Amino acid sequence: MVTFPRRIALLGSTGSIGQQTLDVVRCFPDQFQVVALAARSNVLLLLQQMREFKPSLVACFADTLEVKEKAHALLPEALLDEQGLLAVATYPEADVVVVATSGLVGLKPTLAAIGAGKVIALANKETLVMAGHLVMQAAQQAKVPIFPIDSEHSAIWQCLKGEATENIYRLHLTASGGPFRSATQEQLQTVTVNLMNKGFEVIESHWLFEIPYERIEVVIHPASIIHSMVEFIDGSVKMQASLPSMHLPIMNALAYPLRLNSEKTSLIRELHWTEIGTLCFEELRPECFPCFRLAIEAGRRGGTYPGALVGADQEAVELFLAGEISFLEIAELIETVLEHHHSIEQPGLAATLEACSWARRMVRELWEKKQKCSTGPLLSNWEETLAESTTFIPQK
Amino acid sequence: MVTFPRRIALLGSTGSIGQQTLDVVRCFPDQFQVVALAARSNVLLLLQQMREFKPSLVACFADTLEVKEKAHALLPEALLDEQGLLAVATYPEADVVVVATSGLVGLKPTLAAIGAGKVIALANKETLVMAGHLVMQAAQQAKVPIFPIDSEHSAIWQCLKGEATENIYRLHLTASGGPFRSATQEQLQTVTVNLMNKGFEVIESHWLFEIPYERIEVVIHPASIIHSMVEFIDGSVKMQASLPSMHLPIMNALAYPLRLNSEKTSLIRELHWTEIGTLCFEELRPECFPCFRLAIEAGRRGGTYPGALVGADQEAVELFLAGEISFLEIAELIETVLEHHHSIEQPGLAATLEACSWARRMVRELWEKKQKCSTGPLLSNWEETLAESTTFIPQK
Repeated sequence: MVTFPRRIALLGSTGSIGQQTLDVVRCFPDQFQVVALAARSNVLLLLQQMREFKPSLVACFADTLEVKEKAHALLPEALLDEQGLLAVATYPEADVVVVATSGLVGLKPTLAAIGAGKVIALANKETLVMAGHLVMQAAQQAKVPIFPIDSEHSAIWQCLKGEATENIYRLHLTASGGPFRSATQEQLQTVTVNLMNKGFEVIESHWLFEIPYERIEVVIHPASIIHSMVEFIDGSVKMQASLPSMHLPIMNALAYPLRLNSEKTSLIRELHWTEIGTLCFEELRPECFPCFRLAIEAGRRGGTYPGALVGADQEAVELFLAGEISFLEIAELIETVLEHHHSIEQPGLAATLEACSWARRMVRELWEKKQKCSTGPLLSNWEETLAESTTFIPQK
Repeated sequence: MVTFPRRIALLGSTGSIGQQTLDVVRCFPDQFQVVALAARSNVLLLLQQMREFKPSLVACFADTLEVKEKAHALLPEALLDEQGLLAVATYPEADVVVVATSGLVGLKPTLAAIGAGKVIALANKETLVMAGHLVMQAAQQAKVPIFPIDSEHSAIWQCLKGEATENIYRLHLTASGGPFRSATQEQLQTVTVNLMNKGFEVIESHWLFEIPYERIEVVIHPASIIHSMVEFIDGSVKMQASLPSMHLPIMNALAYPLRLNSEKTSLIRELHWTEIGTLCFEELRPECFPCFRLAIEAGRRGGTYPGALVGADQEAVELFLAGEISFLEIAELIETVLEHHHSIEQPGLAATLEACSWARRMVRELWEKKQKCSTGPLLSNWEETLAESTTFIPQK
């Protein structure tokens, strides 16, 4: 596992994490080599990346006709369907598969890469949130490690180096809390921040580190210097810090168990404590963050609840970003959907994905019906319309 | 090394660290057993400890006739001379030797314990400050680990678990700075705090973790929650935190590589971040702490300088505590002595101890002569008297 150069297959190369992964490769050409690239819609950037890194395999998972045509013209050698994504994820020449896609698209390739015995560097949240039970079980069976690319999980993972997981007393995830962490409910009507992501991170921590939910806490730390902490059974707390940077978790995931010397790169600025001055910690007030509470509840319940959570969240956030619903309605919609979800135990991949689609449809239907009869308070409307809505039929 | 119960020989059982070591043993009777105890002058407490822990060997290194007589009467089975201390340090039934003596007295027993192949849990500062080169060389030869009992070094040690020392970029020792860290030079005339101890800790870190001095920094952190940090070559910083407690470093040193579950003991209070609220970091202003600067200089120079530093500091602090000199004169005296010290390279134990004694004598003589001719500025007086003083004749 310590062999270098490590050969990387990168899913989602044109996104933020994908591009930063390539920054790291660019700074450490002796350590890493890109052998396969996959992206969705930024054909021009993908072309540029191909020219620079010369991968042997390229996939463009184009989801619109326009992108497909562009990709066909500019990237004649690229694979253009889901099989291309799976081919990159299982590319025989790759040692490490970086999953930097966003949304649901990362789940199947991750499972395929695990099946092919690849080391997984995972930046995609939905994969573990929805299907943590499937992914971790597959990884255990295939004896494949899953390394987190994410400030919080990377921090915990670094703090756990050389420590036994049975010595963990509690995990403390830090949350910047966003610029509106002190906002009132009323102010929140107009802002674009919730802590659903932090709830997702709690669920991911539960799976990655095998820690029960009651031993995972979130503390607000606005400066985002401390990226998370581990409290051990003897009372000792270890924390990991740096100036905010995604390059650092990427480097850790790619080079583990080594640490790369970033002194001569411009990737990471040095942390000077006297510049930092003060680090603040505040209690998380769950009443301000209903999405956070809903995520934790769905995680604790398990089954297809997390799948439904992800689907409902995606659709509700889309409606919010389109200006169709208010900020607080995001949580209200998700809560309504989850309350009426019938989960099954130990769902397989199909049931998990179906729960997600069902929840998306439910949110959309609830909203559409509410548009038609927009009198009366919001929730009671939704309750009424629900009876008529599509029922989720789980399948193992 | 992971065998339990671990059998402990404790040097300095009646001091603060000694008593807290016994607290830990009391809380974890299945893990630890006290087989040998040594103390200096608190005969009654030693007797009480004997009755409670039933060690097979007891030494009372009585340095006054009064204590000797008392020990003779109350502890007839105890060994009463330096040989007793060495017998405890090398006691065949012991696995771990805890060196919790204060001052110079710990040095010889530590070397003896290393020679006898014991795991060393080291709380005594002077041992590594004066003779780090000898102690670490002996430990390497005997393949004996030295585990620190000290918040700062324990923090660094914990942060280094699972990490390669060549990946260390810098150590950051935290210093509470004492209650007078913002004091002016004038105010310092009257206060009882300097940072000589922090300078000692830098020297100890240099030896314990094999880090050059230019890669060890000190940052003022008044709350003493973060006990120290390690910055790695990739820019990641790991820090260890707890409410101030010496029980925690003791537990770590005694149980390594295990962590003990302190949940049901009253040894360590849980850290609640929302109670803590804010952690502050300030620059260390060396101009306020000349003793700190002198310690680092002596450490960098090496040879017999650290020995002379320890001797001069001990004597000067005694004069200060007796009300004979002012706070700022502590540093002035130490500086004068170090300026006129002739060091040798790679000194042996005898030369190291002799440098220490010479420095003590020098401080005493300088002060006595200054008493006789107390006109003119302080330093020039000392310079004058120095020519007549005992010369240090180093011996390998």
